Amino acid sequence: MEEFLRFKKQDLFNYAKTYMEKLGVPTRHAEIVADVLIEADIRGVDSHGIIRIYSYYGNRLEKKYMNPTTPFKIISETETTVLYDGGNGLGHVVSYEAMNKCIEKAKKYNVAMATVKNSNHYGIAAYYSMMALKHDMIGISMTNSQPLVAPTYGRTAVIGTNPISFAAPSYKEYPFVLDMATSVVPIGRIKVYEEKKEKIPLGWGIDDNGNVTDDPTQVKSGGPGALLPLGGTDIMRGYKGYGLAVMVEILCAALSGASFFTQVGFPHEPKVCDVSHFFMAINIEAFRPIIDFKKQLDEMINHLKSSPKAQGHERIYVAGEKEFETAKYNQIHGVPVLKPVVEELISNGKRLGIPFELKPI
Amino acid sequence: MEEFLRFKKQDLFNYAKTYMEKLGVPTRHAEIVADVLIEADIRGVDSHGIIRIYSYYGNRLEKKYMNPTTPFKIISETETTVLYDGGNGLGHVVSYEAMNKCIEKAKKYNVAMATVKNSNHYGIAAYYSMMALKHDMIGISMTNSQPLVAPTYGRTAVIGTNPISFAAPSYKEYPFVLDMATSVVPIGRIKVYEEKKEKIPLGWGIDDNGNVTDDPTQVKSGGPGALLPLGGTDIMRGYKGYGLAVMVEILCAALSGASFFTQVGFPHEPKVCDVSHFFMAINIEAFRPIIDFKKQLDEMINHLKSSPKAQGHERIYVAGEKEFETAKYNQIHGVPVLKPVVEELISNGKRLGIPFELKPI
Repeated sequence: MEEFLRFKKQDLFNYAKTYMEKLGVPTRHAEIVADVLIEADIRGVDSHGIIRIYSYYGNRLEKKYMNPTTPFKIISETETTVLYDGGNGLGHVVSYEAMNKCIEKAKKYNVAMATVKNSNHYGIAAYYSMMALKHDMIGISMTNSQPLVAPTYGRTAVIGTNPISFAAPSYKEYPFVLDMATSVVPIGRIKVYEEKKEKIPLGWGIDDNGNVTDDPTQVKSGGPGALLPLGGTDIMRGYKGYGLAVMVEILCAALSGASFFTQVGFPHEPKVCDVSHFFMAINIEAFRPIIDFKKQLDEMINHLKSSPKAQGHERIYVAGEKEFETAKYNQIHGVPVLKPVVEELISNGKRLGIPFELKPI
Repeated sequence: MEEFLRFKKQDLFNYAKTYMEKLGVPTRHAEIVADVLIEADIRGVDSHGIIRIYSYYGNRLEKKYMNPTTPFKIISETETTVLYDGGNGLGHVVSYEAMNKCIEKAKKYNVAMATVKNSNHYGIAAYYSMMALKHDMIGISMTNSQPLVAPTYGRTAVIGTNPISFAAPSYKEYPFVLDMATSVVPIGRIKVYEEKKEKIPLGWGIDDNGNVTDDPTQVKSGGPGALLPLGGTDIMRGYKGYGLAVMVEILCAALSGASFFTQVGFPHEPKVCDVSHFFMAINIEAFRPIIDFKKQLDEMINHLKSSPKAQGHERIYVAGEKEFETAKYNQIHGVPVLKPVVEELISNGKRLGIPFELKPI
């Protein structure tokens, strides 16, 4: 039984764009949001793709929880830094702007960073870090998010899954693109186990008392019970994942003056979420000739991939590789959307007057 | 049975300084090395303190594996970036210089970064990130290191434990200082279990076949067998720690054009190690008034610390807190040095004509 249908990239893009436009989003902004969403599906990060068009964005726009025109503005700016107010609009729009600004500044001053406050969920972190690649730059992208993760020795969800993305350009190999939540797993992964009525591995989450649990229903979104930071328990050095998550929170929220930890809103909440982001671009050529860097990155990637394999494994991957391969496949064969998601797109679309009438491939 | 002796900070500093001078290190350089080493002991990171004065530095200097005068030089420089050749000298010396250069540049241009190639072990990563604190800046410090960690699905040590340190200034609370290897644990931790003939927790390391093992003797330094990256196995998302370790390697080695992965030498090897480092300083005031940032960091720290505790735990820590408390205690009561280390300092010192004649407190 095939659980998903495949659609043409352009069709999905057009649908997402029209959807946003119908909810009052200006055309250029709608294109950005659509591109970020569909890029997630193409790369196989379907948890952050069109599946969220209603729950994270459509619902908030419809109920006026966020501003469809994303009236972002610059609060402070120097040669190498910029701070934006995201205007409580679409996170994708101000993030696209902020990353482009970093790249522009890095062309002149080689290193640049931006923070954004008063924003909303921005989709996949890697979309923005990867924007630096075609400019022969290293790109970095981080965001805070609604509280789902417990600090080490805590028992409630205080910190977001605060992802870090780092992208560096290569020569012939795929670029190195790390895009990782600083929790062991995202909350969606727990829900998958809950739906399948399966136990979760010990170390992914904790129950109301702060004890590690294999029961996915105990690791509730909104707590008590919470996800654990990367590493898991203290024995496995979960405090390092916890430290990385706080580092992200500092760069996003403290540097911009935004809400932090449990102050950050959930997408379904009828309030301003005040999500914050951090971006950075590094002009490699400032250090050494870009061709030398790219060739070395290829060598490093091959060094990793050609190293001896563990029993039962035939291949060592490098960050981003699986996503690039998935994207290559999906570009040719169509972008997969899970059948229940297609049904939701149809029903929500109908209600909002945005019919989903795409033909699967 | 007390397993350590306590010494005055100044006495240990003077010994380490004299030790370096005797081996041909210029006085000012010897002071830097001594300060970095003793700072590690004071902060309770004794694995990186005076314990290593012979094995990581003295031995290499004595055998001319590295240059005691650390003839570092700038290879390329822009307003916001600088690339050093560390002259195959003491990593501490060029790193101290590089971080100061970042701070100086960040005073003018708000963001600055440095990479260093052709260097050696630089001590604790946090020493350099923390240099930014007194300038009201965020500091970042990373280094690659000799191969001890397997990539996910690998079975040999390919990557260093590549630490990341991130320091941000606070108001009344201790600053936030993350300093973490990107492996679950350092190799020294495995050796402690081996000496005690105890099993290691599953997930710390793998055997010759790449299978997780609880036998510390299987997780050999120099492989086969290896440490696992932060997260541990793939189920626990060890590929995230692996990704972070490669990110560090890119920023240190690829940006500077240094050796990478298994090319990096072990401190005991009779060759140029070509260790590389990365530093960064961010001037917070470029984004918002420093006092606002610092007060927010205090609030964030208190938010974490006051959140509900897990069963059996009475306290939630924030990165750096334990080390600051240890340092406070050790400043008053003296710096602890393990008895076997004291014995080694005595015997090695005698052989080199650098007697260790300190009186314990």
